[in-house]
Amino acid sequence: MKSLAYYNGCFCELDEMYIPLNDRGFFFGDGVYEAAYCYNKNIFALDEHLMRFYESIRFLQINFDVSFGELKNLIQRMADKVDDDKLLVYWQATRGTAARSHSYDRSMKANLCITVRHGELRDMSHPIKVITAPDSRHGYCNVKTLNLLPNVMAFQKAEESGRQEVIFHIDGRVTECAHSNVSILRDGELITPPSDNRILAGIGRAHLIKICRELGVNVIQKEFFLSDLLSADEIILTAAGSLCISVGEIDGHKTGGKNERLLSKIRNALVKEFCEYCHCDPRDVYGV
Amino acid sequence: MKSLAYYNGCFCELDEMYIPLNDRGFFFGDGVYEAAYCYNKNIFALDEHLMRFYESIRFLQINFDVSFGELKNLIQRMADKVDDDKLLVYWQATRGTAARSHSYDRSMKANLCITVRHGELRDMSHPIKVITAPDSRHGYCNVKTLNLLPNVMAFQKAEESGRQEVIFHIDGRVTECAHSNVSILRDGELITPPSDNRILAGIGRAHLIKICRELGVNVIQKEFFLSDLLSADEIILTAAGSLCISVGEIDGHKTGGKNERLLSKIRNALVKEFCEYCHCDPRDVYGV
Repeated sequence: MKSLAYYNGCFCELDEMYIPLNDRGFFFGDGVYEAAYCYNKNIFALDEHLMRFYESIRFLQINFDVSFGELKNLIQRMADKVDDDKLLVYWQATRGTAARSHSYDRSMKANLCITVRHGELRDMSHPIKVITAPDSRHGYCNVKTLNLLPNVMAFQKAEESGRQEVIFHIDGRVTECAHSNVSILRDGELITPPSDNRILAGIGRAHLIKICRELGVNVIQKEFFLSDLLSADEIILTAAGSLCISVGEIDGHKTGGKNERLLSKIRNALVKEFCEYCHCDPRDVYGV
Repeated sequence: MKSLAYYNGCFCELDEMYIPLNDRGFFFGDGVYEAAYCYNKNIFALDEHLMRFYESIRFLQINFDVSFGELKNLIQRMADKVDDDKLLVYWQATRGTAARSHSYDRSMKANLCITVRHGELRDMSHPIKVITAPDSRHGYCNVKTLNLLPNVMAFQKAEESGRQEVIFHIDGRVTECAHSNVSILRDGELITPPSDNRILAGIGRAHLIKICRELGVNVIQKEFFLSDLLSADEIILTAAGSLCISVGEIDGHKTGGKNERLLSKIRNALVKEFCEYCHCDPRDVYGV
């Protein structure tokens, strides 16, 4: 055969392999991988790749129960079966399969995927041309992409410590949360971080801004810091699933609760808007 | 039915949906998504979510041919079919399906996935507890994760401008490439960035370091800058698929070529190691 794919015990040609939609690799990129070249059935530096693979597994705390030796044998057996002397061997483990949710059950079992297909080392005989680019691997926060692993890891940490969200900051400057935007109320005004490439311009955030303006609450889009959170009158999180949630504790420090009247006014207006649109009762929303 | 999933024209229950392994969402997180809540069959802020979705599509230059109106109708029809008054509607588009490769063919057609299942707004009636965390959405470069979208976008840009790699930098400090490590030769020494959380400690890089030491070439692990690249005697890229490739041009400026003797010595030693392990001939590697 010309290529071979493996997924959780099943083998077939690469093009014919299907995986569950709910594999967390697909929704969150929640997984790790390795790639190695195999000439004449000898996989170069396989032990080193495997060692790094298991380090990555440990780093992300993926519950992977295939042993080093088993995995090595499986990969080698697959390489042996493909009729080609020059192969690219690729394998990855994702955290598991479950209905989409940032947090995960630690007992969730990892999915293992292996592919073997033709592959050759790149031609090294002459210099190549390259470009430079700012290392923007942080800079896509303004796009709602599937590269969500840091969000997953941080949110899981919050959940496992009995908290419900995590507020990100860069050197103390507040950006956003694992899956919400964060804003504050101070002296009757709403302050929310500007929508640059560090945050997603949330739909919930847009509605919060709109409602505040309708209520005559001044809206300021500017940077603020962790210290501003602690001293804010109220801290508001917004997302599609949380129109207006307040924060009562940050890292163990009591926060907010200093302008519940304005907070309620804003929240009620947001809930009213939602309920009118969806023809539902506010009691449906508050879970009363 | 209790849930409904859609993928490129097929419908079924969410748990039963399978997708091709080669969907670029699975290998690279190369896609965008939206999520909205639907109460009593009314999807809140659907137009806004759709508008942001198409903005994300444009930002990543995904070739998505379903119109705003068609997509809106499809999502609404799916929500109408699920027997539940409180739904979470989720949809995503990935760049397409192809054998794994960072770069992509622009004519590749996007994959559309939609899921509808029970979902409720979060309870807003009392404050939540949160933690803070450094915004580390740049900080997983030391783990070989599937969150590869920035690498994909930068590499594609290089390829489309006729170059073969992209060298990342943070304010001028060189980190690594889209899928290689970068090192330089200067005054007979190898300089390579230290393995912190800005770079992946590449296996190819480890072999380069080992071979240099065996050849008596001093190895220095320290930060260097774009200006150091331009003045380096040689620039070396390493990866599983490129044991030792030199860089002859950066952003249109001629580079390297000042110590080809040492470059060849190192490269030949790396190729020899590979060939001895794989029982192949150096001509197999150089593609002669």
